[in-house]
Amino acid sequence: MGVNLQNESQLFIGIDGGGSKCRATIYSPKMGVIGTGVAGRANPLHGLEQTFESIRQSTDLAIADANLTQADIKTLVAGLGLAGVNVPRLYQLINEWQHPFAHMYLTTDLHTACIGAHNGEDGAVIITGTGSCGYAHVGEQSLLVGGHGFALGDKGSGAWLGQQAAEHALLNLDGFAQDSQLTQLILAHFDVSDAIGIVENLAGQSSSTYAKLARLVIQSAEQGDVVAIEIVKQGAKYISDMARKLFTLEPRRFSMIGGLAEPLQKWLDSDVGQQVQPALAQPEIGAILFAQQQYSKHQG
Amino acid sequence: MGVNLQNESQLFIGIDGGGSKCRATIYSPKMGVIGTGVAGRANPLHGLEQTFESIRQSTDLAIADANLTQADIKTLVAGLGLAGVNVPRLYQLINEWQHPFAHMYLTTDLHTACIGAHNGEDGAVIITGTGSCGYAHVGEQSLLVGGHGFALGDKGSGAWLGQQAAEHALLNLDGFAQDSQLTQLILAHFDVSDAIGIVENLAGQSSSTYAKLARLVIQSAEQGDVVAIEIVKQGAKYISDMARKLFTLEPRRFSMIGGLAEPLQKWLDSDVGQQVQPALAQPEIGAILFAQQQYSKHQG
Repeated sequence: MGVNLQNESQLFIGIDGGGSKCRATIYSPKMGVIGTGVAGRANPLHGLEQTFESIRQSTDLAIADANLTQADIKTLVAGLGLAGVNVPRLYQLINEWQHPFAHMYLTTDLHTACIGAHNGEDGAVIITGTGSCGYAHVGEQSLLVGGHGFALGDKGSGAWLGQQAAEHALLNLDGFAQDSQLTQLILAHFDVSDAIGIVENLAGQSSSTYAKLARLVIQSAEQGDVVAIEIVKQGAKYISDMARKLFTLEPRRFSMIGGLAEPLQKWLDSDVGQQVQPALAQPEIGAILFAQQQYSKHQG
Repeated sequence: MGVNLQNESQLFIGIDGGGSKCRATIYSPKMGVIGTGVAGRANPLHGLEQTFESIRQSTDLAIADANLTQADIKTLVAGLGLAGVNVPRLYQLINEWQHPFAHMYLTTDLHTACIGAHNGEDGAVIITGTGSCGYAHVGEQSLLVGGHGFALGDKGSGAWLGQQAAEHALLNLDGFAQDSQLTQLILAHFDVSDAIGIVENLAGQSSSTYAKLARLVIQSAEQGDVVAIEIVKQGAKYISDMARKLFTLEPRRFSMIGGLAEPLQKWLDSDVGQQVQPALAQPEIGAILFAQQQYSKHQG
């Protein structure tokens, strides 16, 4: 951690909130990570109250894990990386929150993920988990691509792969699309026998429910299923396009993170796949680094 | 109306509930339609409480329009055609509702639309409004195709056309897809200037919000916009496939209904387009005919 702090006893909390989970990590400059907590989704686009609740829950769990007390929360300097706060209205609403911390510094989950992946240095990242998006930060420039959320964008993400597969399964069961092992795998996944059973399990559900089908798509593609291969290739094509757009900023490092980063890598165009370097630290560590950077800037 | 009733003073109410609106029509065998009411969406897949609320509201409005009193509601024989009740669990939940009517007969909105379109006779219908689906009833056989709801199925529907257009606009604004006049039309529709503005207006919104973009797609296709033409053709291809599947039951009549039926007709494959005949009555009249058929069967 490359930030010099005047007060070495100051504790930091890094919070990484997205469409599936909210992770909180408490960090002591002297002792390193001293506690972690995980709660449910914290995506302001899908509800502010749930976002605040998940932040509180993950914080409480991390506090307990670190053997701190509730009263210690107000001494923490928090760095929050949240999905959706690239929308100015949401950024403002979260920033106006009567938060329980000593200080709260807010940015996008992409920014903190990027800071973490490159250990505080400049670089580019693509996240492919429940959603998908790309971010690069080089000098004074930053670039955000994709990340418009489920059912609008997020091609190549877990939710998108799952939605494409479910859509195909329903077309297949109705006799409008070619056979694929995905149809049987999705029926088995929900333990149902027909299209209505699939609809009952997916209608009105959030992106994370769809994302649970993604591993079936990846697995079927790896087993040579033509429909699954077509879906995965289309998603990977978009991820490759996104990467090339980030490369226009000439980042020194590029990492892929999220649950689908590893399985998708082999499907990327080779000019992109060759450039992928391991992420050096998790997004929640990026959130801590961000909190430290902002805190030392504002205190200094 | 071809049903003989022993009691000519019995009043009926036909209720047609879907993803955008709920329409109630009160019918007197002696005087014909005596009152109508329209309320918000009534799709049980997207919420039971809202469905019951919309049924109540549209009923109250129709009661007032017919110069009846609240006390008269319990004398009405109701026919309900509701989206989503092809799902057995939802059919059961709605059927268990402590409804305010003398009798309530429940079926799908497709069934009542089909009964209406062919004035109580056998036939086939495709509905393309907010959603899309097909239904045929011939003798003892009935066939339901598509209609799996927004973000899973409903290709060719208003919501699907709108979603495809919004997805393209975001890809276009991000530099990942070709230009189309749709991008500027959608920005103007929401009075915003960038991708974030579109996302803010669509994220988490219901199918009816997406369906409002459909006329922009149809209009752009008619003006020769290549992207819009591709979207409309893909939707119309699915509608044509659905029609040919319904034709396997050899229905005597086939009608297209819903807000997109007319604009989509010219894009259908010619073998399908040629068979389209006008709907003879509205779905809510179909719901009344259904109520009369069921009532005379159960009373007889």
